[in-house]
Amino acid sequence: MPKIVDHAQRRAEIATALWQVIHEQGIDGVSFRRVAEAAGVSVGRVQHYFADKRDLVLFGCRHMVDAAVQDHGPDLGGADPDGPASGALEPRRARSELIDLLCATVPLSEPFRIGASVWASYQATAVSVPAIAAIVAEAMTGRVDALATLLAAVRSGAHPSATDRADALRLATLSEGCSQRVLVGALEPEAAVRLIRAETERCLPADPGPSR
Amino acid sequence: MPKIVDHAQRRAEIATALWQVIHEQGIDGVSFRRVAEAAGVSVGRVQHYFADKRDLVLFGCRHMVDAAVQDHGPDLGGADPDGPASGALEPRRARSELIDLLCATVPLSEPFRIGASVWASYQATAVSVPAIAAIVAEAMTGRVDALATLLAAVRSGAHPSATDRADALRLATLSEGCSQRVLVGALEPEAAVRLIRAETERCLPADPGPSR
Repeated sequence: MPKIVDHAQRRAEIATALWQVIHEQGIDGVSFRRVAEAAGVSVGRVQHYFADKRDLVLFGCRHMVDAAVQDHGPDLGGADPDGPASGALEPRRARSELIDLLCATVPLSEPFRIGASVWASYQATAVSVPAIAAIVAEAMTGRVDALATLLAAVRSGAHPSATDRADALRLATLSEGCSQRVLVGALEPEAAVRLIRAETERCLPADPGPSR
Repeated sequence: MPKIVDHAQRRAEIATALWQVIHEQGIDGVSFRRVAEAAGVSVGRVQHYFADKRDLVLFGCRHMVDAAVQDHGPDLGGADPDGPASGALEPRRARSELIDLLCATVPLSEPFRIGASVWASYQATAVSVPAIAAIVAEAMTGRVDALATLLAAVRSGAHPSATDRADALRLATLSEGCSQRVLVGALEPEAAVRLIRAETERCLPADPGPSR
């Protein structure tokens, strides 16, 4: 039987090893040798998938954004057999996805702490590396768009209004600031989640209680 | 005439060169040689003031916090010849210092962009280096304390209340999230300042207008 090689899977495994190296040594500490060691593969394998260090570091940044969107992005327009036939997001579900998306940046567990610290490294590097800045800025803009869409759905609006967009930016920056504080130990993760929830509830219509 | 050597001044000059190196190469890229080159001094001079790279990097972090407190920290209890005799901060002055302290993290000019990017590097490194985490967390806690004291002064309270503290944390995280977005180019500095001002005004009593 021929061996089936899942190239996307192999690149993803190398990205995970890359994040481990960035977490421990910073982006400047990245080398093909270190990443290969962390992944438990040969340097040749890493070279097969990535042209150079820059290519690898950029892939790791994009892959982190893609993984976050996959895990926490709102499931907009997805077919929900229990939802309204229109395909619009039901307000109660939008409310819960909104809170999830806002709290997704708070490092509540060790694997997430690693992810958050790697993201912080990418943010710090973005200042002097335009290609990383472009990925980070696009992810941040996409996050505000997704939050605005969810806010509009909670408020039963078809499209995000100016208020939805302003609230989305306010909640996004608040939650990102909270995450930074949790990461360095200046704020308890539970306190961060409470603050984010309170701020979100404050700008929403009252929760009607459990769905009928 | 004997030459008077200002050691604090020399250490401060080396710290400025260190920040330049961190801005360009990251914390992992720091070496005595590179910092000496950036400062235009000999490696021996750097070695005279700092035991090792760790000592230098930590001094740079502490010095950044001290400089920020000096530049933007509230002038609490300072003798103000035009202020009330009690020594308490006059509400209008407290309001303006509050906005200044909140906007101080927004990189509005190039030198401040460098400072903000170095601070972002320290924050990213804090996750894996407890000594840096301690300095960063203490600075963040001190910032919330200072904001709470200013909020209490605007509201004419003697000591910060629970509401002052909660608002201080909310405004601190919001402004820090804004700064991160400005730093990577996801938000215009002017939009960040508008958002921070609006959020601050929203939780304060109405501005009585110019002082009499």
